[in-house]
Order: sequence, then structure tokens, then C-alpha cells
Amino acid sequence: MSSDTPGTDASPVTQTARRAREAAAELAPLPRTARDGALLAVADALEARAAEIVTANGDDTAKARAAGTPDAIVDRLTLTPERIAAIASDVRDVVALPDPVGEVVRGSTLPNGLELRQVRVPLGVVGIIYEARPNVTVDAAALCLKSGNAVLLRGSSSAYASNTALVGVLRDAVAGAGLPADAVQLVPGESRESVKELMRARGLVDVLIPRGGASLIRTVVEESTVPVIETGVGNCHVYVDELADIDMAVDILVNSKAQRPSVCNAAETVLVHAGIADAFLPRALAALTEAGVTVHGDEAWQRAGADVVAATDEDWGTEYLSYDIAAAVVPSLEAAVGHIRRWTSGHTEAIVTRDAAAARRFSTLVDSTAVMVNASTRFTDGGQFGFGAEIGISTQKLHARGPMGLPELTSTKYVVTGDGHTRG
Amino acid sequence: MSSDTPGTDASPVTQTARRAREAAAELAPLPRTARDGALLAVADALEARAAEIVTANGDDTAKARAAGTPDAIVDRLTLTPERIAAIASDVRDVVALPDPVGEVVRGSTLPNGLELRQVRVPLGVVGIIYEARPNVTVDAAALCLKSGNAVLLRGSSSAYASNTALVGVLRDAVAGAGLPADAVQLVPGESRESVKELMRARGLVDVLIPRGGASLIRTVVEESTVPVIETGVGNCHVYVDELADIDMAVDILVNSKAQRPSVCNAAETVLVHAGIADAFLPRALAALTEAGVTVHGDEAWQRAGADVVAATDEDWGTEYLSYDIAAAVVPSLEAAVGHIRRWTSGHTEAIVTRDAAAARRFSTLVDSTAVMVNASTRFTDGGQFGFGAEIGISTQKLHARGPMGLPELTSTKYVVTGDGHTRG
Repeated sequence: MSSDTPGTDASPVTQTARRAREAAAELAPLPRTARDGALLAVADALEARAAEIVTANGDDTAKARAAGTPDAIVDRLTLTPERIAAIASDVRDVVALPDPVGEVVRGSTLPNGLELRQVRVPLGVVGIIYEARPNVTVDAAALCLKSGNAVLLRGSSSAYASNTALVGVLRDAVAGAGLPADAVQLVPGESRESVKELMRARGLVDVLIPRGGASLIRTVVEESTVPVIETGVGNCHVYVDELADIDMAVDILVNSKAQRPSVCNAAETVLVHAGIADAFLPRALAALTEAGVTVHGDEAWQRAGADVVAATDEDWGTEYLSYDIAAAVVPSLEAAVGHIRRWTSGHTEAIVTRDAAAARRFSTLVDSTAVMVNASTRFTDGGQFGFGAEIGISTQKLHARGPMGLPELTSTKYVVTGDGHTRG
Repeated sequence: MSSDTPGTDASPVTQTARRAREAAAELAPLPRTARDGALLAVADALEARAAEIVTANGDDTAKARAAGTPDAIVDRLTLTPERIAAIASDVRDVVALPDPVGEVVRGSTLPNGLELRQVRVPLGVVGIIYEARPNVTVDAAALCLKSGNAVLLRGSSSAYASNTALVGVLRDAVAGAGLPADAVQLVPGESRESVKELMRARGLVDVLIPRGGASLIRTVVEESTVPVIETGVGNCHVYVDELADIDMAVDILVNSKAQRPSVCNAAETVLVHAGIADAFLPRALAALTEAGVTVHGDEAWQRAGADVVAATDEDWGTEYLSYDIAAAVVPSLEAAVGHIRRWTSGHTEAIVTRDAAAARRFSTLVDSTAVMVNASTRFTDGGQFGFGAEIGISTQKLHARGPMGLPELTSTKYVVTGDGHTRG
């Protein structure tokens, strides 16, 4: 690209992105064996140099504790030899996945004899902006390398020492296996400015994937001139239809909300058809209360339970990520769909019903990444879907929608072969 | 989406986008027969109301002539009953294409018995920003309706009367067939401001596709907060390898450059391996001169022909769209690839060679939308590729790359069916 002309006064972030671009060009033509070999070297090196990584991680956790960070968050930041071994094992799992690069997606011989093939190729340079957990550093790098991409990693400043150590180990292993070390780079600098520069590196970075909280994602989506894949904000709904099996509906609701409330595919709102409300609400309230969930309900829910908090419009739009749920009674399936269309983040919505026509109508009318019919919202996940790995869950419509595995980290190109064909 | 909350002070463009969003929700669940019926009604109405369209078009062409617009451009703007009949016939061709909506892209039964299906769905609201030719108004609307999308059309102000008449006919026909008229809308206003508002309608418009000159496309890509598919700028290269068949290379070069120089898949630069330069350059110069092409060459080309103009760095980066070509001699295939990587817009590059290994190396190393092996660059085209229709040629890597047909105007969603599945 002509915008890729080397400058003399480039910032450290821009220089990093240029080196990534060069590494990506070296990486793209390499066969699977070369990429897999580097990943196996990465897994071995993580285990061999675990002590060094744990020491660096100790600096981050000490700083976090000194700053009064809650224990749960310090725990997510912590690396132990056992956790590093688990991360290395995940890298070996990635090695075993099918190679997306080179897959012929479409192919035909045209009427004039030209042979047309559409082939998967790496995207080029992938930038990942993420929050606290340092295991993302290795996961993201492994998926990018497996799919032939160079990766620019921008983790949170609270994990800077850990990430620096991890990326050092990764680069040494990659270089030792004969691949360009610059295929894996940490974005220099701990300031917000380095994120901004990354978002402006259009022509050098092919895609940015923000992974983390809603505000991080919104900032990247709104300010980046580099194409972005929006991930992971989940204001998910469970709709209990008039003809639901009540036992099943209670199970799915409680599982969707409370099995792991801190993740994006947990339910945040339950909508109940008026025709089943009298029977369902007391059962649901008992089960939710037992699971420790606070219900923020409309008037019907408030009448059904003394502990129900009055819901406001803010509740319908909130991704609690906690033991809270918004709850309303709706007059019809269409009203449920209307509520969802108005408030959803487009992640996952579930219907519980014995009525095949209702299931079909709900699946068709709801415009979200995933629709669950008689199943928990918690199943929207690359691992659960059988993709073997996941770089994030896209909630946008372009390029990738839903859990993103290795194919979603590729583009395609057409290779057209003739024997002197010209156009008449 | 919560950003889609109705406001009281919305601009005309925003109001238009909101109506499109509502129409898109009505359109998405409709079966193929409903969409095809509306398109057939559109084709009939275009023919029945041709006189009205021609009259409105007369206002645009009169204005263009009065402003001293060149004849060739006035001709591209002109609609006649014959041209309108051809446009109607194109709409009927779109009706005959396979329906992308509802296609199951991937499906399996997961180990726990959940049935997973990834299904094509419309994108929603597609905005098209385009220049002079009013036939694009109908083409784009037909492709969007066929793929279940609502469309916002923003043509050039020089075709405003024609586009207003055409969209009037389209809306009447769509409404007459029982579909929402707001599935097809012209963006109100002829000013630049209306384009800017369209580019800021994130959450209402799902994708913007600019079709036109390089400066229009650059503006949209850089300023839009709505996701954009970058189309059509083509700085295409023909590389003549050391082991090329010289007759074939001359034919492919002349066809790539001169068969229709004004389009994006025409060649703009020829690179020749030094080992074949002495034999090839005189032959190429004679053929290019005969075709009326001016060569902007490096020193080797200047030595080979008295009429060769000295090339500057600007020539390597220019999409001439005229009877001009930049020309250089390179020491190796790798040097050709390096030149291409530096200067290409990523559209189409051709190699002419008898050497299978060189063809493979070139196809692998070049990172563009299409690589032609022993074929003219002019073949990168939805029609030539057998897609039956084309909304543009994407030169970006995300979502769609290369000629975009109907599947590229869709997204997917996952529909997952269980019988009470919860996650353990």
C-alpha cells in the first residue's frame, strides 16, 4: 500500500506496526508445518521459562494489591506454574486444529476455461486490545500465528510486566523456530496514547479486535480508523413463551443467569408471556432467589414477589454481569421481539416453548448473533460450538458474527489461471 | 439497538435511516417469493413509466450541458426508453439468481445433542454512495431487495432529478407488491452534509458501500463511523516473467490496459523481468503505441522507445483510468512482488509465465484481491466470475474481498435448538 511508505519520524507504535507488516508478509506464504512448529516451540518455552514469567507476574500482582485491587481481580491476574502449564496445553490444542490458510472456499472452471479458485489467506496484521488476564496474551498470539497473521498485543497496564515477560518468551521461541520474531509484538507504552495510535494505523494494521468491557469496546469502535470487529457485549434475553414447559423454562432461566453471571453470554433480562405468567413467576422467583439473584421487575413481577426491585428503563439496557436480572411480562411473542430489538446488544436470545411455530417465528424475527431454542444462552461460545478455539464473540454483522474461530481470522483471495485469456 | 431510540430533533437523513431500519425488520422474514414478486413489479413499472423517467432525466442532462459537462459524461447520465428497458431486463436477471437468504452455511449436531445451524440473513440497512450513472440506482436497489435488505441511495447531485423519478417508480412498485415502500429510499438533500450524516448513522445503517472515484471512496473510508466496504480503486499490475511467452504477454498486456481503460480492473503498470526485457520491450512498445497508449517508463523503457515519457514515483501510485501506463524493468520476480506490495491498491495483479514454479510463487506472495496467471486483469468482475450480479469490487480484507454478489450482501446468525439444554 502506498500509505505504507517508511517515514523518518514514525512513533514507536507506528514502527512496531511496520515491523508487524513486514513479518506478516514473511509469514503468509509459510506452510502449516512451519507455523505449527513455532507454536510447539512456544508451548515448550512457556513451560521451560515458567519461573521467569511467575517472577514478572509477581510485580503486577504486588502493584495491584498495593493499589487496593479486589482479590478476585488479583486472582485473575495471577500466573502460577500450573496455570502456565495449562496455557501451554491450550497452545498445543491450537496446533491440532485444522489449518484455515489455503482452504479453497469456492472454485469452478468458467465457461471460457479460466480456472477460478477462492482461497483463504491470512488477514495480515491483527491488533488485539484487551484487559487484565495475561493468558489472553498467549491465546491470541497462538490463534493469530496458527492462521498466518502477525499480532500486535495491547494488554492492560496492570499486566504490563507479565505481558512483557510472556511476549519475550513467545518471540524467542518463534525466532528459534525460524519465523520472524516480529510476528508477535507487544505495543509499546502503557498510556492511552499508544491505544490511540494503534487505532489510527490504517494501512498497517488490518483489523483491531477489542476484548473487554463495554466502554473499551465502544471507544475502539467509535474512534478507530482501522477496521474493527466488535466483540462481546451481551445484553442477552430469555423469553418464556405461553406454551413453555415450566420446569424447562425455570432450568434454562437459572442456568442462563446464574451458572456464570460475569460472562457475556449470561442472561440479563427475562421476558414472560402474559398467558403463562401466573404459573411461571412464582416458580421462577423461588428458583432465582435460591440462586442468589435479585430481580428488577415490572409491575407484574413486583406483584408476584415482595423482594422484586422496581425496574427502570436503565435496567432493560444494562449488562449487569452480576446476580441481577431485569424481568417483564409481555402480551405476545411479537412484543417480546419488539422489546429485544429495542434493547439488545445483539448477542444471544433464547426462547423456551413447546410450540414449533413460535420457535420458528422467534428465530426468524430476532436479529441477533445467536438464537437458542429451548437451550441456555450460555451455549454461545466457540468451545461449545465445536470450533476448538475462540478469539472473541463478534456482535457485528460484517465479516464475522458470533464466536470467531480460526477461519474468522482469515480473508480470501481469488487465483485465476488461464492460458493467455483476454477479454473480448 | 439502544442507540436506535427515536429522537424528536432527528435530521431528515436520520429519519430516513430510521424508516429504513423499520422496513428492514419487515423485509427480513419475508420469503423469496415476496421479494422476487416485488422485483418483477419494479421491472414492469420501469418500462411502463419510462416516459416519466426520461423527462426527469432531461432536466439533469440539460443542467449538465449548461454547465459545460463533457459529452461523454452527459452520455453516461442519459436515460432513453431503450436504456430503461435494458435496466428492467437486468432486474429480471437478478430475480432469477439463487436466494442467498436462509442458506445454511454450516450445520452440525453437537456432542450434547444441540443442533447448530449457521444461516444467512440480510445485513439490514445498506447505504450506497455513488456517482453519476443513474442505472446504479436501480441495480443497487434490486440487489439489496433480492438479498432482503433495505437500501439508502445517495447518488450524485448531477443525477438528482433522474434518481428521484427512478426511486419514485421503485417505491410505488414495491408498495404495490405489498412490501414496505421504505425498503427503497433516496437520501434527502443534494449537499455534502447529507453524505456526512449518512456516514454518522451508526446503529441505523449496517454498512456503507461507496462506488465511484478514489477521492469519494477515501472520504467515506476515513470519515464514516458506519462500517464501510471499500470498493473499486484499481492500480493493477501486469508482470511479464523471464519465462513468458512473448506473444501471450503482449496480448495480455494490451488487453489489460486498453480494452477498456476507464475501469478499475484495467492495468496501470507493467513490470518486466530483466532477462526478457530486450526481446519484450520493442514488441510491447509497438503494440501499446498501436493501441494509442502512452508509456511512462523507467530508464530501460526510455532507452527502448523514443516516445516513452520519464516515469516518476507518482506514476507508480497512479490509477490513470486512461490510455497511459507506467512501465519498469525489474531484476527478479521477488522485485516485482516488492514493487507491487509497495504501490498496489490491492485489486488485481497478473503474471505471464510458462514457469509453473514462478506462477505459484507469484500467486502466493502477492497479497491482492485477485491474481491472474496468464490471463488479463480485466477478468476480475462479478459477471465474468459467474456471480450473475455485482454490487462492487471490494479491495478490503474484511467481510468481502473481490467482486461482491448477493452472498456478500448478507450476514449470518446461529440458530441452536435443544430440548432443555443447560450448561454444566
